[in-house]
Amino acid sequence: MASNGSTTVGHPITCKAAIVWGPSEPLVVQEVRVDLPKRLEVRMKVLYTSICHTDLSAWKGENESQRAYPRILGHEAAGVVESVGEGVEDLKPGDHVVPIFTGECGSCSYCKSDMTNLCGDFRVNPLKSTMVGDGKTRFSAVGPTGGDPVPVYHFLNTSTFSEYTVLDSACVVKINPNAPLERMCLLSCGISTGVGAAWNTANVTEGSTVAIFGLGAVGLAVAEGSRLRGASKIIGVDINPDKFAKGEEMGITDFINSKECNKPVNQVIKEMTNGGVDYSFECAGNLDVLREAFISTHDGWGRTIVLGIHPTPRMLPLHPMELFDGRRITGCVFGDFKGKSQLPDIVDKCMKGEIKINFDGFITHELPFEEINQAFQLLEEGKSLRCLLHL
Amino acid sequence: MASNGSTTVGHPITCKAAIVWGPSEPLVVQEVRVDLPKRLEVRMKVLYTSICHTDLSAWKGENESQRAYPRILGHEAAGVVESVGEGVEDLKPGDHVVPIFTGECGSCSYCKSDMTNLCGDFRVNPLKSTMVGDGKTRFSAVGPTGGDPVPVYHFLNTSTFSEYTVLDSACVVKINPNAPLERMCLLSCGISTGVGAAWNTANVTEGSTVAIFGLGAVGLAVAEGSRLRGASKIIGVDINPDKFAKGEEMGITDFINSKECNKPVNQVIKEMTNGGVDYSFECAGNLDVLREAFISTHDGWGRTIVLGIHPTPRMLPLHPMELFDGRRITGCVFGDFKGKSQLPDIVDKCMKGEIKINFDGFITHELPFEEINQAFQLLEEGKSLRCLLHL
Repeated sequence: MASNGSTTVGHPITCKAAIVWGPSEPLVVQEVRVDLPKRLEVRMKVLYTSICHTDLSAWKGENESQRAYPRILGHEAAGVVESVGEGVEDLKPGDHVVPIFTGECGSCSYCKSDMTNLCGDFRVNPLKSTMVGDGKTRFSAVGPTGGDPVPVYHFLNTSTFSEYTVLDSACVVKINPNAPLERMCLLSCGISTGVGAAWNTANVTEGSTVAIFGLGAVGLAVAEGSRLRGASKIIGVDINPDKFAKGEEMGITDFINSKECNKPVNQVIKEMTNGGVDYSFECAGNLDVLREAFISTHDGWGRTIVLGIHPTPRMLPLHPMELFDGRRITGCVFGDFKGKSQLPDIVDKCMKGEIKINFDGFITHELPFEEINQAFQLLEEGKSLRCLLHL
Repeated sequence: MASNGSTTVGHPITCKAAIVWGPSEPLVVQEVRVDLPKRLEVRMKVLYTSICHTDLSAWKGENESQRAYPRILGHEAAGVVESVGEGVEDLKPGDHVVPIFTGECGSCSYCKSDMTNLCGDFRVNPLKSTMVGDGKTRFSAVGPTGGDPVPVYHFLNTSTFSEYTVLDSACVVKINPNAPLERMCLLSCGISTGVGAAWNTANVTEGSTVAIFGLGAVGLAVAEGSRLRGASKIIGVDINPDKFAKGEEMGITDFINSKECNKPVNQVIKEMTNGGVDYSFECAGNLDVLREAFISTHDGWGRTIVLGIHPTPRMLPLHPMELFDGRRITGCVFGDFKGKSQLPDIVDKCMKGEIKINFDGFITHELPFEEINQAFQLLEEGKSLRCLLHL
């Protein structure tokens, strides 16, 4: 299979994609038509993709406002540029790339600020289901009951559950062509989010103490990031004891099964750490857990980083006066990395061995793309961290 | 009147104090017995004191848990050391001092950290009403109905509504003896809190935009701090239009009377500032105002500093997902200044003219100590910023 789609350039492509036709309905691997990339867009051949909880949530339509079907989900991937639209100057056919769901146009006031990685036009937005340029989709397909092809919606600026996808060039990062794409795939979301939360958002320091609530891929990537920074104690908290063996491999030094505690987790952590951890990370998407994470930090200087998604009407379970105890809370999107500016350098440093991220540890399963429904099930049952799908 | 109480050293002192005998009852200016300072304590002759909203709130007993009567309130003051207890090495009789309600012992893990100004033993604690050393009071007085003297409770580590008071030495800052004590009094709370919130907590940068909600002394001190940092726009928000003239004098460039807005204040501010201010400060102690302050900042990088006290059972009116818009919220106590380490230098810089804080602008009234009830009334009615009481 050629990595340069020279025979396809300039034409619509018909290929395989996994389409969700309704909430929680099994994904249908079927033919889809992928249009040409328009101005400032890129058509990418996806070689590897994996599944994250955000895909799971959108598949189920957990948040009513983000329901849009039929849709091609997927945002963690790696592949090769097939062709580019007018005006794209930093990417060309054949480039090795990873997509990013929080893009970087490079020219808006947000991209020019060093205080945020939220691009004005291409920040993560689960409600967005069409291309920014013309508000239309680049996908169309015939539904399960036949008839004319219908537009198929995009997801998170990426839609990687397809052999080919169209993205804005702001959401495509060119990386070192010698880097193994099947591992770099994880930089597209999980690893960057967790490692960046530790490095950029929290700025974990040597010898510090860390508590991670929720030991999925993002939580374990936080552990990786904290370990690489030299944290002296990395406490993992989860209700699934099966996650503890893997956690140890990723740098976690102490475990708490919150289901088996006979006192609040924050109290257990305070006793283990002489008053609380320096940094806590909420990777569970649960507000009661968020509160535990917050008060598990040391007063005076504790920092809580929120990574979990909270699709709930409930407000933050924190009292305003608690802010005066010196604890702080911060949300983190994509590890506060500016994707196009910073990921290529991370990849280069990984290649040179200057950063030793345990990519392999995250990939617990590999399956052919056609078995995507099984991959969804593995993640939902908490059996996989990342199941790599080969396209 | 000698500033060195040589005739009193080693003896209890009988002097005048303003005592609160019950919630919202008029303060009684009467005789009080002030015991000797014990180990690591200082007895201070108070020369000037002023009144802040925290005194008002404790006087009324707004928060049930902080009711303790009889009590000597007051925490913003300046004066002279009368005598010191055993073990006090950094202060001696005659030193010019200001008390600080959030002390600095200098040796605990908090004081040794550069990430907090909350001392382990002497941080601000409105529930504390006795001395740390022995859990007893150093004041006693005869009640309005006569009988034996009863212990009189302390307040905020300071209790400055008395001609003499006893404080832990951790809560006493020695300053340049040439500095005017009647102005330095304001460094004890209001000015340090507001200016420090702008300098230390927010770190307001040149050319940035600021919104201040609540134009009392603290809010205006934030304006001072922001002006001194070179903020390009300082928006003052209040429901009392009388505060606007004074605000202009203190550096406020734009006013919003939130009662007269026909759309939410945050929307008005966003229109005035191309999407929101860089920094907002909540100095009103109201949760609806806090929410407006939060969403008035620019997404991506907005910082909200909470200075107001919120004696309410309501939790923070922020949704967890709002943290992902890049706005941050932080509490601030005493402007994040470490009092003993940092205030003397601020005083020196003010003396040299390197920092030009408009102390005079804050002192709207001056009264003899005996008229303290009138001073309370002026503050409650929003007529005074600071009423300086002369002892």
